[in-house]
Amino acid sequence: MPKLNSTQIKAGLERLPEWRRRRQVIGRTYQFKDFRAAMRFVNAVAKCAEEAGHHPDISIRWNRVTLELTTHDAGGLSEKDFNLARGLDRLIK
Amino acid sequence: MPKLNSTQIKAGLERLPEWRRRRQVIGRTYQFKDFRAAMRFVNAVAKCAEEAGHHPDISIRWNRVTLELTTHDAGGLSEKDFNLARGLDRLIK
Repeated sequence: MPKLNSTQIKAGLERLPEWRRRRQVIGRTYQFKDFRAAMRFVNAVAKCAEEAGHHPDISIRWNRVTLELTTHDAGGLSEKDFNLARGLDRLIK
Repeated sequence: MPKLNSTQIKAGLERLPEWRRRRQVIGRTYQFKDFRAAMRFVNAVAKCAEEAGHHPDISIRWNRVTLELTTHDAGGLSEKDFNLARGLDRLIK
């Protein structure tokens, strides 16, 4: 899984308007009505991550969940990150 | 729920040897065999937090889970944080 170049990253981010890039990581914060709703989302994320064999860093602050993705093996962002990000966004649709 | 003073915080931490204080927050990182085990723990933490009406910030990095506690209403650490920390530690015993 090769590391993407900046043109490829830019193209990937255009399809993920809610995601922000910070160096070699892309992240998004989702807000829910309460902690229970946030935890339901986190469990859906966990299932999706296990299926993809790729795991975001997950941060939970009561009703807010932040997901961050990078591909450690590639030393940066890869297609796996963008594919998973799109899958995770579909969980809240 | 009043904010604890530094003597009270020190006494509380003596009963929580794995927890570290950073200003008005106490935190601990737990390590598990894999992401699934980490998620099982996070769900037990969530249940415990809902029962206590007090929620740690939770960070999941594959097999590592970091919990951080403070009492926003008290503007610092309160008994609620130390009580919940002890309850959370019991989840892995």
